[in-house]
Amino acid sequence: VAATAERTGVAPERVWRDLGQYGRTNGIIADLIARHLALDEDIHVDPSSIVVTVGAQEAMAILLTGLFEPGRDMLLVSDPTYIGITGLARILNVRVVPVPSGDSGLDPAVVERSIVDASRHGRVRAIYDIPDFNNPLGTSPSVATRLKLLDVCRRHDVLIIEDNPYGMFAYEHERRPTLKSIDADGNVIYIGSFAKTLFPGLRVGYLVADQEVGSNSAKSGETVAAALSRVKSLITVNTPPLVQAIVGGVLLETGGSLEPIVAPKRAVYKTHRDTLVAALASEFHDLRHEVTWSSPAGGFFLPMTLPFHFGPQELRRCALDYGVIVCPMRFFCLDAVRTNQIRLSFSYVDPDAIRRGVKGLAAFVRDRLAAGAGDSDRRSSATDPTEASLAVA
Amino acid sequence: VAATAERTGVAPERVWRDLGQYGRTNGIIADLIARHLALDEDIHVDPSSIVVTVGAQEAMAILLTGLFEPGRDMLLVSDPTYIGITGLARILNVRVVPVPSGDSGLDPAVVERSIVDASRHGRVRAIYDIPDFNNPLGTSPSVATRLKLLDVCRRHDVLIIEDNPYGMFAYEHERRPTLKSIDADGNVIYIGSFAKTLFPGLRVGYLVADQEVGSNSAKSGETVAAALSRVKSLITVNTPPLVQAIVGGVLLETGGSLEPIVAPKRAVYKTHRDTLVAALASEFHDLRHEVTWSSPAGGFFLPMTLPFHFGPQELRRCALDYGVIVCPMRFFCLDAVRTNQIRLSFSYVDPDAIRRGVKGLAAFVRDRLAAGAGDSDRRSSATDPTEASLAVA
Repeated sequence: VAATAERTGVAPERVWRDLGQYGRTNGIIADLIARHLALDEDIHVDPSSIVVTVGAQEAMAILLTGLFEPGRDMLLVSDPTYIGITGLARILNVRVVPVPSGDSGLDPAVVERSIVDASRHGRVRAIYDIPDFNNPLGTSPSVATRLKLLDVCRRHDVLIIEDNPYGMFAYEHERRPTLKSIDADGNVIYIGSFAKTLFPGLRVGYLVADQEVGSNSAKSGETVAAALSRVKSLITVNTPPLVQAIVGGVLLETGGSLEPIVAPKRAVYKTHRDTLVAALASEFHDLRHEVTWSSPAGGFFLPMTLPFHFGPQELRRCALDYGVIVCPMRFFCLDAVRTNQIRLSFSYVDPDAIRRGVKGLAAFVRDRLAAGAGDSDRRSSATDPTEASLAVA
Repeated sequence: VAATAERTGVAPERVWRDLGQYGRTNGIIADLIARHLALDEDIHVDPSSIVVTVGAQEAMAILLTGLFEPGRDMLLVSDPTYIGITGLARILNVRVVPVPSGDSGLDPAVVERSIVDASRHGRVRAIYDIPDFNNPLGTSPSVATRLKLLDVCRRHDVLIIEDNPYGMFAYEHERRPTLKSIDADGNVIYIGSFAKTLFPGLRVGYLVADQEVGSNSAKSGETVAAALSRVKSLITVNTPPLVQAIVGGVLLETGGSLEPIVAPKRAVYKTHRDTLVAALASEFHDLRHEVTWSSPAGGFFLPMTLPFHFGPQELRRCALDYGVIVCPMRFFCLDAVRTNQIRLSFSYVDPDAIRRGVKGLAAFVRDRLAAGAGDSDRRSSATDPTEASLAVA
C-alpha cells in the first residue's frame, strides 16, 4: 500500500479505503492493464474499454450473458476447445456450433463455410478461439491466416472472442501478433488472464471490448465494455480489490511489462517442453509409424495421436498401472473426432517426472499394441470431460 | 499463514500452495463457515452443502442459472427488494413475479395467493426475500409469520431463497431465528455474506443448499450444493483463495463466531439508528401528520413516507440544494407503488452528518409543502435505479 501510494500519488488512507469498499465495477487497475497490453501485446486501448474480472472465466460468463440472445444467437467455437466456454454456453442456453480446427488452428475457409451454414439457422454472434498456443492443440496460426480470419469475420459481421492466457509463453523467437493487435475493424473482443503469468489463485482476468454498442450505421457512443459493466455488476458486483491490488502492485513494480516475471517461468516451461519432446523421440523411437505428435511453439500442451482409441478407461489404466496421467482429446471435442488423440501437459511437471511419465506412456502403448489394439479397437464409453488440467505425472 | 498452519495442523508450504493454485470450486473455508453458522445463526449444516462465492451476488447468479429454466420457471420476489436479484433475473431471462411486502415484511397469505396465481402461468421455483432487516424496508417478520411462510412454501413446493447480509445487526435483544434455522423440511436455500460483518472489499459470500437433488419421490443422493458447484466452476472457477483465507483467518482467530467482530460495529450502527430516529422526531415534530416513518429493529435502512412523490428529480434536488442523499423507494419496486416513500441509510454515516442530513431533508419537505406539493403532485419521470447505496450525507 505504501508503494502504491508513493507511485500513484494517492494517499495511503484512500488506498486502504478503496481496497475495503466495493469499488468500481470495472476494477481499479484498468490503466495498469492497458499499459501492460501496450508493452507486452502491442494492443493499444483506452482503460475504459477494460473490465477486470474474476479470472478469464467470468469474462466469458459476462460475454455470453451480455452479448447473446439465449436460444437464438450462435457462438462458433474452434473444436476441440477449452471446456469452460462450451460448458458455460450450455448452462446459459447459448447455441454452440463447432468449427473443426486443423494442425495450424482455425482455417479461415472452414470458418467462413461454418458461418454461412450456421447463419441459415440464426444469427452467428461470435467465434471463440485461443489462437496462441491453443488449449488443447498447442497450435498457433500464421500471420497470414490471422489476417484472413479477421477478414472473414469482418465481412460476415461476426465478433472474434480471442482468449489469450498462454501468449507470453512463446518458446521460439518469432512470436506472432495477437488478433486484437492487428484488428483494424474493431471486431475482436480480447480476454486476458494473470493465472499463468502470475498465479492461478489470484483469480484475476479481464476483457477488452472497445467497440461501440450498436451497428455501424447507428453507434450509441457507449463502448461494449461499458454495457458489459452492467452485466458484471449483477454477477460479482466487482472483482475483489485486494487481488486486483496484487496485480496492480506487480505492474507498478515492473513498470508495466510482465516480461521480467514471465521470462524465468518461460525458460522453465521451455525446458519442460524440450524434455518432453526429447523423451518422446527417444521412447517412441520404434513406434514412429504408429504414434505421431507435434512440438508446440509455446504454451502448455502437446497433442499426440495414438494407433487406438483413448478414452476414460485408457486414462484410468494409464494412471493406475503406468503412473502417467494424460487427457483424452475427446474431452475437449464437441464433434466425435480425434478419438485417438491425447493432450500432454508439461508446464507444471519437472523434467524427471516428464521422463518417467513418457516411459510409462510408451509402455502402455506397447502393451496395448501387443494385446492387439488397433484403430478399430473397442471404443471406451464417453463420459463427461473432467475440469482438471491433467498432466504427465 | 503461520497461524493457519498452526491452528489447522496443515504444513505452511501446503497453505501457501493452496492459496496460489485454483483450489476447490466450492472453496477452502466451508468447514469454518459451517461452524460460524452453527454458533451465530443456529444453522447446522454439513460443510459439503456450502458453496463459497464471490460475494452474495455470485450466489444469486449461481442459483438463478442453476435452478431456473429460463423463460419458464418463475421467481417470486418480495417487492420492493434488492435490485441485484431483479436485475440479474432480467439478464438471465428468469421470469420475476413481485409479491407486495407490508409493514412487517412478506405476508404468508399474500405469498400463497401469489403462488397460486403465478402457477397458472408456469412453475414457481422459488421466492426471494431478505427477512432480517430487509433492504429496503427494514422489516423483520415475527416467528409466527416465518413459520407460516415456511408452511406455505412447503405445501406448494416452492423454495425460499433467504438472503441474510444484515441478520447479525439486531439492535434489540430478541433477535428472531433465520428461516433456515427453523426450516424442518429442507425448503430454504440460504445466502450469507461477509460484506457487512467483515468488509465489502473482500467479496466473499456463500450459499447453503443442503437439499437433495430431485423430487421427494426420487432423490438422487447428490446435494443441490454439489450440483450448483458445477455452475460455479463455469462462472468464476473458484473464489480467490486469498480473500477466503482472510475470512478463514478471522474465523480461526475468533473461534468461529463473528460476534467479537460484529459487536462493536453493531453498537456504532445502533447509535446511528438512534441518532436518526431522534433527529427525525425532533425535525419533523410539526409534520407528524404528513410524514411517517418506522424505526427498524436492526440493519441499515429506515423507510419514510412523504406527502408527495419522491423520484429522481427530488433525489437530485435534495442532494444539490439540501445536502442530503436519500433513495426513492420506487428504485426498489417492480410494481409502481410506494412513490411517496424514501429509504434512509444510516450505517456508514456519522451522527453529526445524520443530524445535518435530517435537517436538510426536513427543510426540503417544508419547502415542497410550502410550494403547494401534495399527494397529487407531478410525477417525476422514472429512470433506472442506481446501484449505489445512498446515504444520508
